[in-house]
Amino acid sequence: MNTAIILLAAGQGTRMQSDLPKVLHEIGGAPLIAHALRSADTLAPSRTVVVTGHGGDEVAKVLADYAPEAETVEQVDQLGTAHAVDQARGALADFEGDAFVLYGDTPFVRGETLEAMQAERAKGAAVVILGFEAADPGGYGRLKTGPDGLEAIVEAKDALPEELAITLCNSGVVCADRTTLFELVAAVGNDNAKGEYYLTDIVAIARSRGLKCAVVTCAEEETLGVNSRTDLAAGEAAFQVRMREEALATGVTLTAPETVFFAFDTVVGRDVSIGPNVVFGPGVTIETGATIRAFCHLEGCHVSEGATVGPFARLRPGAEVGGNAHVGNFVEVKNAVLGEGAKVNHLTYIGDADIGERTNIGAGTITCNYDGVFKHRTTIGAEAFIGSNSALVAPVTIADGGYVASGSVVTTDVGPGDLAIGRARQVNKPGLGARLVARLKSLKEKR
Amino acid sequence: MNTAIILLAAGQGTRMQSDLPKVLHEIGGAPLIAHALRSADTLAPSRTVVVTGHGGDEVAKVLADYAPEAETVEQVDQLGTAHAVDQARGALADFEGDAFVLYGDTPFVRGETLEAMQAERAKGAAVVILGFEAADPGGYGRLKTGPDGLEAIVEAKDALPEELAITLCNSGVVCADRTTLFELVAAVGNDNAKGEYYLTDIVAIARSRGLKCAVVTCAEEETLGVNSRTDLAAGEAAFQVRMREEALATGVTLTAPETVFFAFDTVVGRDVSIGPNVVFGPGVTIETGATIRAFCHLEGCHVSEGATVGPFARLRPGAEVGGNAHVGNFVEVKNAVLGEGAKVNHLTYIGDADIGERTNIGAGTITCNYDGVFKHRTTIGAEAFIGSNSALVAPVTIADGGYVASGSVVTTDVGPGDLAIGRARQVNKPGLGARLVARLKSLKEKR
Amino acid sequence: MNTAIILLAAGQGTRMQSDLPKVLHEIGGAPLIAHALRSADTLAPSRTVVVTGHGGDEVAKVLADYAPEAETVEQVDQLGTAHAVDQARGALADFEGDAFVLYGDTPFVRGETLEAMQAERAKGAAVVILGFEAADPGGYGRLKTGPDGLEAIVEAKDALPEELAITLCNSGVVCADRTTLFELVAAVGNDNAKGEYYLTDIVAIARSRGLKCAVVTCAEEETLGVNSRTDLAAGEAAFQVRMREEALATGVTLTAPETVFFAFDTVVGRDVSIGPNVVFGPGVTIETGATIRAFCHLEGCHVSEGATVGPFARLRPGAEVGGNAHVGNFVEVKNAVLGEGAKVNHLTYIGDADIGERTNIGAGTITCNYDGVFKHRTTIGAEAFIGSNSALVAPVTIADGGYVASGSVVTTDVGPGDLAIGRARQVNKPGLGARLVARLKSLKEKR
Repeated sequence: MNTAIILLAAGQGTRMQSDLPKVLHEIGGAPLIAHALRSADTLAPSRTVVVTGHGGDEVAKVLADYAPEAETVEQVDQLGTAHAVDQARGALADFEGDAFVLYGDTPFVRGETLEAMQAERAKGAAVVILGFEAADPGGYGRLKTGPDGLEAIVEAKDALPEELAITLCNSGVVCADRTTLFELVAAVGNDNAKGEYYLTDIVAIARSRGLKCAVVTCAEEETLGVNSRTDLAAGEAAFQVRMREEALATGVTLTAPETVFFAFDTVVGRDVSIGPNVVFGPGVTIETGATIRAFCHLEGCHVSEGATVGPFARLRPGAEVGGNAHVGNFVEVKNAVLGEGAKVNHLTYIGDADIGERTNIGAGTITCNYDGVFKHRTTIGAEAFIGSNSALVAPVTIADGGYVASGSVVTTDVGPGDLAIGRARQVNKPGLGARLVARLKSLKEKR
Repeated sequence: MNTAIILLAAGQGTRMQSDLPKVLHEIGGAPLIAHALRSADTLAPSRTVVVTGHGGDEVAKVLADYAPEAETVEQVDQLGTAHAVDQARGALADFEGDAFVLYGDTPFVRGETLEAMQAERAKGAAVVILGFEAADPGGYGRLKTGPDGLEAIVEAKDALPEELAITLCNSGVVCADRTTLFELVAAVGNDNAKGEYYLTDIVAIARSRGLKCAVVTCAEEETLGVNSRTDLAAGEAAFQVRMREEALATGVTLTAPETVFFAFDTVVGRDVSIGPNVVFGPGVTIETGATIRAFCHLEGCHVSEGATVGPFARLRPGAEVGGNAHVGNFVEVKNAVLGEGAKVNHLTYIGDADIGERTNIGAGTITCNYDGVFKHRTTIGAEAFIGSNSALVAPVTIADGGYVASGSVVTTDVGPGDLAIGRARQVNKPGLGARLVARLKSLKEKR
Repeated sequence: MNTAIILLAAGQGTRMQSDLPKVLHEIGGAPLIAHALRSADTLAPSRTVVVTGHGGDEVAKVLADYAPEAETVEQVDQLGTAHAVDQARGALADFEGDAFVLYGDTPFVRGETLEAMQAERAKGAAVVILGFEAADPGGYGRLKTGPDGLEAIVEAKDALPEELAITLCNSGVVCADRTTLFELVAAVGNDNAKGEYYLTDIVAIARSRGLKCAVVTCAEEETLGVNSRTDLAAGEAAFQVRMREEALATGVTLTAPETVFFAFDTVVGRDVSIGPNVVFGPGVTIETGATIRAFCHLEGCHVSEGATVGPFARLRPGAEVGGNAHVGNFVEVKNAVLGEGAKVNHLTYIGDADIGERTNIGAGTITCNYDGVFKHRTTIGAEAFIGSNSALVAPVTIADGGYVASGSVVTTDVGPGDLAIGRARQVNKPGLGARLVARLKSLKEKR
């Protein structure tokens, strides 16, 4: 069965108090809209149409990264959810199959839930609505069911007392045959207080035409919608809880799970140990048996088996930490490969570099990779030794077994096994330190 | 109406297990007593008298910072709350108007609550007591009310069963006309187990004199008193929850609100994004659209629109980060101005400096601002380039477009567009690295 | 009374999803088995026999560190708990007194609880079982008691409905006279579904022989067993809650207790203040009145009275921070002594060093302690001044009052009050910076 997704992403999100379109706010390092689309991936949709409005250009730009296959259509005026769905009519004119209506600000609907809706369609329902048992139904639309499936969606404000007692509520997610969906949407009117076209009306219209409607029920947390920063923080928290539970279940030690923040795509192997206060940005893979100590920040990097990172390490995009390598405190690694067993333990910046196996980089080493315009590469061979507080001015190569004396500025290549020294000779001036301090102190007293 | 504050701050706080006077322990970076006085600010009091006792000198010193207008009177012997209030009698002898009795260890009474007490006075009550509905009344004094307002304060230990069932409890906060208050206080006796003069007795005395007493009720959390480190931590937690909620409501993204710690005076603009694990000390302002990444520590600083700070950045007092400027990892900035679009991205110390627009400071740069006695300033113009691992020995000026070669020690001024280089020439010694390591290894084997 | 401990530590812990033996997973920086043995310390056991199985060699190695007096016996095949206890028969053949059966994966049984079991033995019970009131008894064995003490342990799967209603459950911890214990264990059969020998069977056997059995009840949290990473994280959390409460009670300020992670042996004095996000590894002592600011990581170190550490400081094993000394941001100290009032405030690595009283170490200083093979020591006297961005190439000594100019590489000793300078002279090339950047930019355009 062909499937199309109609993703509504036009809302302004006034309560977000933000200039950023609501669906671009992030959870786990990815925009809400990317989470919503990821749910739909389970359906392997052949078409994805995103209905944009506020900040449409920004949304389209982000979609190009996360879902390049998605098409966008613009909803110029925001006249309600049925009107929003209607904007996809042209784009899907030739499409044959089922269409799902999803929401860019509802990131947590599970793929299995959407499959259950598909199954309900296969059993003969013309329209399938996703519902949830609400702990506090409040203002949600109520799903009135009977022997014949879903009988009506009753808005809270229009509900009779016995209807208000219903706890099965409407999530807004819909599945129907494309032709049926657009026929029903075309019949929706706007004769209501706000003058808007509500997608929920399609159930009454479908019933009046003798079409069967059905409900699929999911956990309330799947339907969490983000309408404020507080919702966003709650969504992030829910996401993190799930990621932490998954990590623990697969054999990862989290000393303090509540202090570890994963990204949507973090991959962590078995017997990895992660200390308190570790933050993962997108694009991180940690292999089996690696240790990530406290206070680390990792993004776009790969840590190999048995490596140790941190505490206080920052791995930036393109950092490749080899097996059993060590990256220590106050060390930043960016776009650089550390060979197996290499050590970079203290107060060091390694940017745009290749470092060979078992090479030791001393404390305070800086790869000087930028000349103000270009970035250049530093290449260090295996079993080399870079003395502490050295500056390696790229482009520069230090061959296998090269030895750089502490405090050197290295500007030319160093051959295999050669020693490079680039520092001034020390001069001691007897008694001058004491005299200098005495003079400064007397100056201070006079001030 | 004139208002005076009598703030009781004499207690030792034995359960704090501390040498520091209780009211000087901090929440949100400010002493408890400062929070209590801030509540009172809403009343725009014309007089503030703080009754000190234990550690009175220390308390007075801190008051000089937070409330220079406050007067202090000493309670030499601590003989109860009425006795404490009585110490303010002389200081307020000429004062005409209402007096509030507040507590230095009760930081969260809201200004609106005090205003409600004022309103109750205006309606004719001679004495207004602040009460709260206690979830667990336990040992609190019960407020017995009747058609005629507050009828009595009953201590828990003296209470009849039906009185113990009362959940409206006494916070200790009092408002009365100054003259009335001191008349009532003068009538309080100490005929009780501890031989102390209790302020609560004024209600019975007032009633016996035919004066009307009234109760104003506030939320229990406003009356949270700090008597132990556990209370202090609970108070801090309550304070942080409130600050985080306010930030979220005004359009700030907090990825993990529970990991962000605000100070009492933190100001954060709309569309600011704050990552996990950020700590604000006093005196921080973050403008619209700035990003504070994970693991930052900021105090006494100002971050302008669109700037990015962190992860792992420390901004200390006097740091001014310009619009769209970048402060990166393991960077400390103190008493320094970074111009618009300036970049200080890695392992750098910028102290006592001015850095021009769009200037780039390389990794590992250190402003050498201290000579052992004096601090000196480093001045760098616009669009300058400071090569990595440079030391800038202040006082020193690098003009607009000045270019410092990596690894330089800069001791003299650099003119506009000039290149400064201050590093030793590198010498390579063929094979010497390998021979050195071999010799060291053989030595090691012999050991 | 002589006491022997039989600690069962043979289990694989399949649900841990780990190659590490279960009892070696850590809480508070110490392996589970060390916690279990620490509980038993209260009993001052004269013998400790650990029954190992999976990863027995690794377990034995760790025991050598934490409990060198413990003996290990191997359980080659894992045929049940009674079979495990039976492995200790030989080792304890000559022992006379009481034996406790404890579990390597049950770290929180309190010493007082074990003493209560001992007391029950003294009162005449042949076998004492440790029970707990389970909030959710689920699959736990139920302890059926009567006028005559413990009558039976009923496995949940064999229990009648009225037995299932019992909430007093079996922890597995047993105390009995050594001779009795092994006689009972010898009588245990394996005629059950799994063909295993269950220790719980000894109660029925004892009863059938007319021996009195008794129950001691402890809090459920004492019996927390670790079977999964989720259990491990829960155990760590419980441990941390306890440590934080103890710290608060003894007069330590924890701004955010939930963000401070203690080790099993952390010692913190009165009026110490600890900011948010501080992690203690093993072996740390903090003296009275010291301040540990946010984002610090400490292990194996000692911080003296009035010292200030952090934010963003890392103290590694052997760091001794003197009274009123300061260790600031992005500073690592390892195997080094900082004298009273010494200051190491910014971006510095101090490794293998002695630093005298009131000496000031400038920003970006690096002790170059490693030559690729050996570690060497840096010695700095009192009231010395090390200019910023200096490299001190050990072994090297800087005497009292020695003064190192900023940006120096120091390779030879500096005498008292002498000034050392070891940096290249700066050369300025007029206009060359601007020309260089212009050339690079034109190159970039051509690319």
